[in-house]
Amino acid sequence: MNFSSKHIESAVNAFATLPGIGKKTALRLVLHLTQQPEEVAEQFAEAIVSMRKNIRQCERCYNLSDDRLCNICADKRREEGTICVVESIRDVMAIEDTGQYRGVYHVLGGVISPIEGVGPEDLTIDPLLERIEKDEVKELIMAISPTIEGDTTTFYISKKLEGKDIQVSTIARGVSFGGELEYADELTLGRSIVARQPYHK
Amino acid sequence: MNFSSKHIESAVNAFATLPGIGKKTALRLVLHLTQQPEEVAEQFAEAIVSMRKNIRQCERCYNLSDDRLCNICADKRREEGTICVVESIRDVMAIEDTGQYRGVYHVLGGVISPIEGVGPEDLTIDPLLERIEKDEVKELIMAISPTIEGDTTTFYISKKLEGKDIQVSTIARGVSFGGELEYADELTLGRSIVARQPYHK
Repeated sequence: MNFSSKHIESAVNAFATLPGIGKKTALRLVLHLTQQPEEVAEQFAEAIVSMRKNIRQCERCYNLSDDRLCNICADKRREEGTICVVESIRDVMAIEDTGQYRGVYHVLGGVISPIEGVGPEDLTIDPLLERIEKDEVKELIMAISPTIEGDTTTFYISKKLEGKDIQVSTIARGVSFGGELEYADELTLGRSIVARQPYHK
Repeated sequence: MNFSSKHIESAVNAFATLPGIGKKTALRLVLHLTQQPEEVAEQFAEAIVSMRKNIRQCERCYNLSDDRLCNICADKRREEGTICVVESIRDVMAIEDTGQYRGVYHVLGGVISPIEGVGPEDLTIDPLLERIEKDEVKELIMAISPTIEGDTTTFYISKKLEGKDIQVSTIARGVSFGGELEYADELTLGRSIVARQPYHK
């Protein structure tokens, strides 16, 4: 592309480093900013720098946080005895958005994957085990992808907890509510029959 | 969405003001930046602020420019006698990318649109007429959208130039090269028959 301006070119290149943003989209965003007052561009830049500078990981659950503890861990009304184990902070947000969960979280930072060279020591599994030891945790809800790597991770953690007085559960999986059977993928439908639930009148 | 961090929230809101970027995409971009070193976020912000601060309009053609004149107007090898009139700088980039044009440009900044309250005085038509008066312009190529507003703009400018020794032309429109007739839209196909060209062996 011919930008006819070094400044435009470097701003486009900066945007194009972001995931899912190609050069054409980047150009659209940059041209939009050229039409805004200078303060708007400055505030935009300031929000990004300040975010990156001040954001840190919650010392307890590894969620993103403004302080030492994230606002979920800091909330006294949350049930500390129940920990929902997730792969990423995006999963925390998704579960929080449902408004159905009152326990706390633990963000693993990924799943065990020998192919990608991710071992248990690369994840926050040890801090999780320490946390379970220290706090009085009664239940661990594993909300991990149902992939081979995810299942391995769940298995590894449950194995480490053998002999301990703690309930390990996984989130319910099956055909989605409102989902039509014919459109459900084969794996989900198959497993939802195998894992059928007793019907309560 | 529940961000559990004010910094994340304000960065997401900043990204979400950009055209075509919703909250979910904005979150994806922000989370990507949280995983980059602090310098990366700073360089990103710096590229935007510096672009917005230093970018200006070319005093002659109203293209975006780093200097008083854009690098097309400043290029002595371009034919100054031919001006291609376009609506936006994006059109300049598109034409430059073809590598087929050696003249200069004039960016109108839009088209005359009574419905949207855009009159000739809101566009750079007067500077264009002054430019034609001052420089020795031989040809004006109108590369404007074939809409009612675009046609009105072309008509308005050509009317202003009546009696002057200047050739006004429009870019060729028709079925695209390599385009199959059956897939061409009706308007394009219809007009391409009306505006048929003599065949040269």
